[in-house]
Amino acid sequence: MRKLELHDDRLFPADPAVRAIARTLYQGVRSLPIISPHGHTDPAWFAGNEPFANATELLLTPDHYVLRMLYSQGVPMESLGVLPLPGSTPAAAPVDPRAAWRIFASSYHLFRGTPSRLWLDWVFAESFGIDRRLEAATADHYYDHITTALQGAAFRPRALFERYNIEVLATTESPIDELPHHKALQASGWKGRVITAYRPDPVVDPEFEGFLDNLELLAALTGEDTLSYRGYLNAHRKRRAFFKSMGATSTDHGHPTAQTADLGEREAEALFARVTRPVVSAADAELFRAHILTVMAGMSLEDGLVMQIHPGSFRNHNPQLFARFGRDKGADIPTRTDYVSGLRPLLARFGNQPGLSIIVFTLDESSYARELAPLAGHYPALKLGPAWWFHDSPEGMRRFRLQTTETAGFYNTVGFNDDTRAFLSIPARHDVARRIDCGFLAQLVAEHRLEDREAAELAVDLAYNLAKRAYRL
Amino acid sequence: MRKLELHDDRLFPADPAVRAIARTLYQGVRSLPIISPHGHTDPAWFAGNEPFANATELLLTPDHYVLRMLYSQGVPMESLGVLPLPGSTPAAAPVDPRAAWRIFASSYHLFRGTPSRLWLDWVFAESFGIDRRLEAATADHYYDHITTALQGAAFRPRALFERYNIEVLATTESPIDELPHHKALQASGWKGRVITAYRPDPVVDPEFEGFLDNLELLAALTGEDTLSYRGYLNAHRKRRAFFKSMGATSTDHGHPTAQTADLGEREAEALFARVTRPVVSAADAELFRAHILTVMAGMSLEDGLVMQIHPGSFRNHNPQLFARFGRDKGADIPTRTDYVSGLRPLLARFGNQPGLSIIVFTLDESSYARELAPLAGHYPALKLGPAWWFHDSPEGMRRFRLQTTETAGFYNTVGFNDDTRAFLSIPARHDVARRIDCGFLAQLVAEHRLEDREAAELAVDLAYNLAKRAYRL
Amino acid sequence: MRKLELHDDRLFPADPAVRAIARTLYQGVRSLPIISPHGHTDPAWFAGNEPFANATELLLTPDHYVLRMLYSQGVPMESLGVLPLPGSTPAAAPVDPRAAWRIFASSYHLFRGTPSRLWLDWVFAESFGIDRRLEAATADHYYDHITTALQGAAFRPRALFERYNIEVLATTESPIDELPHHKALQASGWKGRVITAYRPDPVVDPEFEGFLDNLELLAALTGEDTLSYRGYLNAHRKRRAFFKSMGATSTDHGHPTAQTADLGEREAEALFARVTRPVVSAADAELFRAHILTVMAGMSLEDGLVMQIHPGSFRNHNPQLFARFGRDKGADIPTRTDYVSGLRPLLARFGNQPGLSIIVFTLDESSYARELAPLAGHYPALKLGPAWWFHDSPEGMRRFRLQTTETAGFYNTVGFNDDTRAFLSIPARHDVARRIDCGFLAQLVAEHRLEDREAAELAVDLAYNLAKRAYRL
Repeated sequence: MRKLELHDDRLFPADPAVRAIARTLYQGVRSLPIISPHGHTDPAWFAGNEPFANATELLLTPDHYVLRMLYSQGVPMESLGVLPLPGSTPAAAPVDPRAAWRIFASSYHLFRGTPSRLWLDWVFAESFGIDRRLEAATADHYYDHITTALQGAAFRPRALFERYNIEVLATTESPIDELPHHKALQASGWKGRVITAYRPDPVVDPEFEGFLDNLELLAALTGEDTLSYRGYLNAHRKRRAFFKSMGATSTDHGHPTAQTADLGEREAEALFARVTRPVVSAADAELFRAHILTVMAGMSLEDGLVMQIHPGSFRNHNPQLFARFGRDKGADIPTRTDYVSGLRPLLARFGNQPGLSIIVFTLDESSYARELAPLAGHYPALKLGPAWWFHDSPEGMRRFRLQTTETAGFYNTVGFNDDTRAFLSIPARHDVARRIDCGFLAQLVAEHRLEDREAAELAVDLAYNLAKRAYRL
Repeated sequence: MRKLELHDDRLFPADPAVRAIARTLYQGVRSLPIISPHGHTDPAWFAGNEPFANATELLLTPDHYVLRMLYSQGVPMESLGVLPLPGSTPAAAPVDPRAAWRIFASSYHLFRGTPSRLWLDWVFAESFGIDRRLEAATADHYYDHITTALQGAAFRPRALFERYNIEVLATTESPIDELPHHKALQASGWKGRVITAYRPDPVVDPEFEGFLDNLELLAALTGEDTLSYRGYLNAHRKRRAFFKSMGATSTDHGHPTAQTADLGEREAEALFARVTRPVVSAADAELFRAHILTVMAGMSLEDGLVMQIHPGSFRNHNPQLFARFGRDKGADIPTRTDYVSGLRPLLARFGNQPGLSIIVFTLDESSYARELAPLAGHYPALKLGPAWWFHDSPEGMRRFRLQTTETAGFYNTVGFNDDTRAFLSIPARHDVARRIDCGFLAQLVAEHRLEDREAAELAVDLAYNLAKRAYRL
Repeated sequence: MRKLELHDDRLFPADPAVRAIARTLYQGVRSLPIISPHGHTDPAWFAGNEPFANATELLLTPDHYVLRMLYSQGVPMESLGVLPLPGSTPAAAPVDPRAAWRIFASSYHLFRGTPSRLWLDWVFAESFGIDRRLEAATADHYYDHITTALQGAAFRPRALFERYNIEVLATTESPIDELPHHKALQASGWKGRVITAYRPDPVVDPEFEGFLDNLELLAALTGEDTLSYRGYLNAHRKRRAFFKSMGATSTDHGHPTAQTADLGEREAEALFARVTRPVVSAADAELFRAHILTVMAGMSLEDGLVMQIHPGSFRNHNPQLFARFGRDKGADIPTRTDYVSGLRPLLARFGNQPGLSIIVFTLDESSYARELAPLAGHYPALKLGPAWWFHDSPEGMRRFRLQTTETAGFYNTVGFNDDTRAFLSIPARHDVARRIDCGFLAQLVAEHRLEDREAAELAVDLAYNLAKRAYRL
């Protein structure tokens, strides 16, 4: 049986002198509270505070990073407990969660060199106190140990939240969500700060499933005529204000491209009329999304919500998988993204507003040094979000710092956010970011490009202050 | 006179602790047999087993890496023994191979920092036992030493094959090749495993020189009416079966882009009719290539041949050079390549088949982390070929691992292949790959991201098992 | 108060063994004269040899790297002494240069990790002998110390030129510049070699402000009818000859893309007629720029001027800033650039001429390994300029070497050039390049890919010989 140990020096640079510097920097940040300003955990967990069911349903079936790797090596989704959509044929036989876990355990070598392995090992060792490696031989031990632990008080969502030293955690909801769990949380008296974020894609993207139905729901919630452009904008204003009252400090926009537009009133009205018909052209849909980004920036300037833009994912690339299992099963693929001409209309209108805060993310690393660092290093309104999704990894973070710092500096970036629905992995993800940033800073110190005291100050900024400031938390 | 020595630690990371780990890993793989599942050596060498002529004709004139560098610095092709095409004017005076070699020797400093230098020094030192550096002063010594050695039994192709410990070597042939050398090899009783691979570009690409003539030859070889779409597909099936009987386990497709298409029967027939006319539009040619890739994937699913796609080379970028000397003289230039939308039609049709194996290569490194690793880390049918051509180099390999591993893992890659016509450099190329991979693994171990025993297992997988498995050898 | 010290080992690799090699290599190049073949200093400085006014006007207000960073963090341009364009409203109150300097000083932490910090610290410590760090508390000390020093003889432009050991410095002028300062310099008897370079954008780009007026001025200077295509070309020839007589060895072309074209005589004449009308289409403007690049290459073949191409900057991305302050305030943003098809018409015509020297730069690092190194490693006429502008930085230079050397080698690159208008930073910039190149070479030596003596030779080539040779100085 092989031991599972997390080495104290993991992820630090190998050179002994640089490692020593990194270690010292890390001591100053390892215990700082976690600021998690952008993510996808379920607020129901914290509102209800019910125990998680078992190892498989908590750690395997909902994790699209894990699903995609196993699927890529020929493991059927059904065998991992992923349920086909209602009506999809053939129906899937029910899966024993333990059997699914065994498949995962015996395939765990596939994750060598991946961030999933880092996060999961942390969860196993630090959260559950397991001291042997996951593999076929230890599958049942893991399953039983984790599933039993989950029944205890220490593993209830609120207990974990506190144990993880989370200062604030943002979830993400749609404008047509009534935020019952956030309301319940506010009423509960629990001290944990779980806030929402305004993610309007379902009522902004004419190609979103059920767009027109969503507009109807939006009308019902706001009393506005959401089939008139003016009413539609008013409805946004009202929901943004409501989200703000539920703690939101930010909005989030997940568009296929970074295209923005700044249409005149009449042109915008005419476009809105076209995209609220049953059939919408791809060009109109794109133009509407583009225009609304600029509209949203204008509203952010009014109400102070920080604006996040997450472009460049080709959603549901695999039509067979999508037909059977639906969204978020690991089949979203990054695409090349143009920020220079894409963001220009928005920036031309609002980019010079120092009171506005727009945080841009990318899945296209080739834009770091060429486009994003130069843009963020010039426009007062623009900041760079951390390495995202596929790039939320040790090498991804290193490339982010190596390719953005020289042009944008550190202070046009916003610290780390975990962007995850895998609640238990949140501390692991922040820990990876802190270690990698300390390693990067240590390298600068070792090359005499930065003083020790500057690096120590920066380490705290990157781990804590920048996120708090950028997200107005 | 300067000594030529290959240092035992060459290409390992500089940090002493990491280097020590790399060294240990390398000891476990340095002597493994060579699996060479994709390359361009001439099967006639092994069938005929005749001696190579001299240093220049073996090592200089056919090596497009070497030609391009010398040409870029103003050395005329003719002076290196490259013959103009018949009819090209002015006619070139015959070149003394020794004179060509002297030019090469006195320009050898141009190769500092390039992989050609690594490969050639290995050939000089390890294969020929030369102990001084190549430069103007040693040009004749080299020429004489090598040319004399080549006459001995130890330097016949089969002897080198055995001495190089090659377990299997694939060449690449066109469907209209009758594979006489492979037949002769099968009949010869020699134990060396030299197999073919099915490279149908000359009968798939309507813009290939002599496309219609090639279809005629294909008809003659198969008895099919290759001007009917149905007959054309049958002819492919027959030639694939024949290639399989000659040992082939794979096909290879060298398209200008990664575009695929999945046309309906009627549409495909109509397109085929258009591309078999004397004048073909660029759009039709591209669409036909795109469609046939999907057709070939379907045939691979039937006959089990592994499918390789090598896109993104702008062939013959230099029209003056092409007019005088023809193809493969170092004037092919990589282009930006879109895999996400390009491969989608094929993957939508066949990407979920775990029984299908498609290996994709790229000349566009910006696609590693953004497109290829995410695609291969999801689709069961897709694997990533190693760093290719211009990127078959120490830094190219490092970037490949650094940018693909976190998302695709190691097991969606297929080990190394040398892709070369420079037979004598094959062991050098595999040795570079083994050293770089061991260095990469050592780095992961040193950063406590991988255990020693895992790294040791992976080193063997990357050097030997993965290629054998992926190519079904 | 914190000490300002430049560490002797700054920017060298951290590993002690590699660092020791780098240190030795650097000893061989640190004192070599500076070749500055491309830049934007003002020839009036050297012609007039008047003292610089004060710290702010010398080091802060004209430095677009510094302005952009401060502006990105909300510092108004006006507060830094940047004057709005005449007629821009509201008018700006005059700014006390000391007040501007204090803002800069108190924001100096923003530059952590940027090359500006490296360059400025060098200027402070090495040129002015300041021994404490710039921060709010030392702002006045800096301002007074620098401003006083500037009044002394040692800080006159010519004295600095000599103290900096500059062997040759090229400025950049337009064809309609009469080069009064270069004439004065020639007449002055001063030994410093300050030459011009031919930058014809104002008379080549139909979208340049005042294009038609510029053609008129060009006509006046040359006696040619610059509204006829033939007269226009003759005017270029005459001005190129005049620039050559003023020391120029090169031309420079700053186009939005790398597109070239090679039109027939008639087509070119017709296009010229269209672009010399008051309204010009974007497509015609682009085609004209593209065609003239090929024309300029032809003229370079005649007159021997080295041709530089600097494509891929989206100029004046921020329309509000441009309207108020004009050009060159830090709002130019790099764009994706296609060299493979873009340069092909020019290279097809002239790329095989070893007597022609074309130096290409890029702001799109994704083209290094994929496009530029393969092109420069093949075409005799093509060489690669150093890492440019946003990439003129330690990491930018490392990426340049790591991504170009294996395919293009060292000898298809042209050494370093500083490309700056910040005169005092010139030695700092060359020092950074020398340190990074020595570090890169040291890495190759440590990995046993290069011998010590080769690295030593290369270090001198990269720091001195290559620039001198490539620019024919």
